[in-house]
Amino acid sequence: MAGEFAFIERLRAIANHPAARGLLDDVAVLDIGAITLVLTHDSLVEGVHFLATDPPESVAWKLLAVNLSDLTAKGATPIGALMGHTLIGDAAWDAAFADGLEQALTHFDVPLLGGDTVRASERHLAMTLIGGAAGPVPSRAGAREGDGLFVTGCIGDPGAGLDLLRRPRVGEGRWTDKAPDARSGPRLREGDELVTAYQRPEPQLAAGQALAPVVTAMMDISDGLLIDAQRLAEASGLAAMIDLDAVPLSAAFKSVRGEARAARLFATTAGDDYQLLFTAADPLPPLPCPVTRIGTMVSGHGIHLHDSDGGVPLPPQLGWQH
Amino acid sequence: MAGEFAFIERLRAIANHPAARGLLDDVAVLDIGAITLVLTHDSLVEGVHFLATDPPESVAWKLLAVNLSDLTAKGATPIGALMGHTLIGDAAWDAAFADGLEQALTHFDVPLLGGDTVRASERHLAMTLIGGAAGPVPSRAGAREGDGLFVTGCIGDPGAGLDLLRRPRVGEGRWTDKAPDARSGPRLREGDELVTAYQRPEPQLAAGQALAPVVTAMMDISDGLLIDAQRLAEASGLAAMIDLDAVPLSAAFKSVRGEARAARLFATTAGDDYQLLFTAADPLPPLPCPVTRIGTMVSGHGIHLHDSDGGVPLPPQLGWQH
Repeated sequence: MAGEFAFIERLRAIANHPAARGLLDDVAVLDIGAITLVLTHDSLVEGVHFLATDPPESVAWKLLAVNLSDLTAKGATPIGALMGHTLIGDAAWDAAFADGLEQALTHFDVPLLGGDTVRASERHLAMTLIGGAAGPVPSRAGAREGDGLFVTGCIGDPGAGLDLLRRPRVGEGRWTDKAPDARSGPRLREGDELVTAYQRPEPQLAAGQALAPVVTAMMDISDGLLIDAQRLAEASGLAAMIDLDAVPLSAAFKSVRGEARAARLFATTAGDDYQLLFTAADPLPPLPCPVTRIGTMVSGHGIHLHDSDGGVPLPPQLGWQH
Repeated sequence: MAGEFAFIERLRAIANHPAARGLLDDVAVLDIGAITLVLTHDSLVEGVHFLATDPPESVAWKLLAVNLSDLTAKGATPIGALMGHTLIGDAAWDAAFADGLEQALTHFDVPLLGGDTVRASERHLAMTLIGGAAGPVPSRAGAREGDGLFVTGCIGDPGAGLDLLRRPRVGEGRWTDKAPDARSGPRLREGDELVTAYQRPEPQLAAGQALAPVVTAMMDISDGLLIDAQRLAEASGLAAMIDLDAVPLSAAFKSVRGEARAARLFATTAGDDYQLLFTAADPLPPLPCPVTRIGTMVSGHGIHLHDSDGGVPLPPQLGWQH
């Protein structure tokens, strides 16, 4: 891990063009005449970012969604995608992946512009997404002391869905660490919408575009609410006070995991959320999307959690680090 | 291989935006107001596109060079790069890679704008390069019957350098298939400039910008002259007649491999060249770079080779297919 941080610090020293935003943001922001380009590159590695048994269609969906999610936080509209695809010798997987990619590109109205295919031993799927922004492009670094800290939607559904996929299903009569094959296995009942939230996430493009002119800072929370709140606070030179009890949970999430402190810590660290985290002066103007205030930006450093029982120690893992 | 072609055909059906150029070009070409964006994404996989024993600095150089090479063929100027990097747990390799990346970015004046780092088991390095073109952007598909077929520079030096790296060195007293470690091993004498051509290729940015207004079709030949000539001919709906004896070879290449038919077939199929292949009406206007006519575009299909001894059968491998 020390090597990883050192490497990223080294890249930060290299990436000294203002458009790189010090590599402290999810995107690069490049002014080209009348339009502002918003550029992001995210990769998925099998066994790290998706399960070998995930349906290939949902991996393709996720590859686009994880990149779109970076654009949403900038209020940008996607212009097109370039894809890097590995061929490891499984034509059926690749064909199903292409089907899923087409569905996802059509669903989100993103043209596929190019890319490359390479032979490899490990599945490693890369995408660069190019977006354009007509107005201001929020960064992570603009939060001001006293701003409210908000999220869109509900938190934790995809994480709970992934956890269900990893569990043995009732009635199978055996315990296994392997994820069930969602292509051929029997369908889950309770938690189906959580599994869908994991396999078919919906980046909040419209919400991002509506929020961009309103917020002081914004980012997506695909790595987990707590770790991303920490990143936003760090980039803004502030601390975030977060009320765990205020974190919005869906009925489906609560039916599977409850809403006690442990469930809330799970929801806020599991990652794979595709909601937006932002700071703004409260009260907000009327918005076309549900948002919930979960905390306040204060002077200091890091994040501080509390709930109705008082202070909550930070869990050892705040989310995904990849 | 059948699965690979089927997959790429499937992607072509999906990539139906005009900017994608049917995935038949090396780049996507996107008009955004006053500027034309030229976008490319190329990846390098260890064991496929570079040797595990290659110096990390030269891998970084090559990652940028292979992407720059796609821009050169469009007469474009680089605007910035996004990089996808794998961390497989070798901090010293990553640090040397970052040094080489900085050298290469500085040498070619390309800002690093962003990207991502992922944990993985296999080294797989991806880059998206964004360029801009002020004038017309040549494609592979514009060649006309009767056009001359030309190359810049000399062909085959990097391929010969790679071959030298793979050979046992004189005086080592053993035969091995493993490439020598170019970081710590004794330096080669004969062929040093061929090894440099492999490890520090120089994409022809200035030549590409000078040629773009002159050519009817242009592409880089990083996969090998013959396979790329076949691609240009196919995209243009023509055949290419190529005189092997006309293919320009450097003095360094000839000193190591000679210039007989076998050497010329090696040079034209080895790949890793960073020269440009283009078609244009002959005679050409004065140009600031050395170019050599190697053939003629004619009606028909595929490529046809000849030399002073008559027709030359096509070799089974025309170049890299990845």
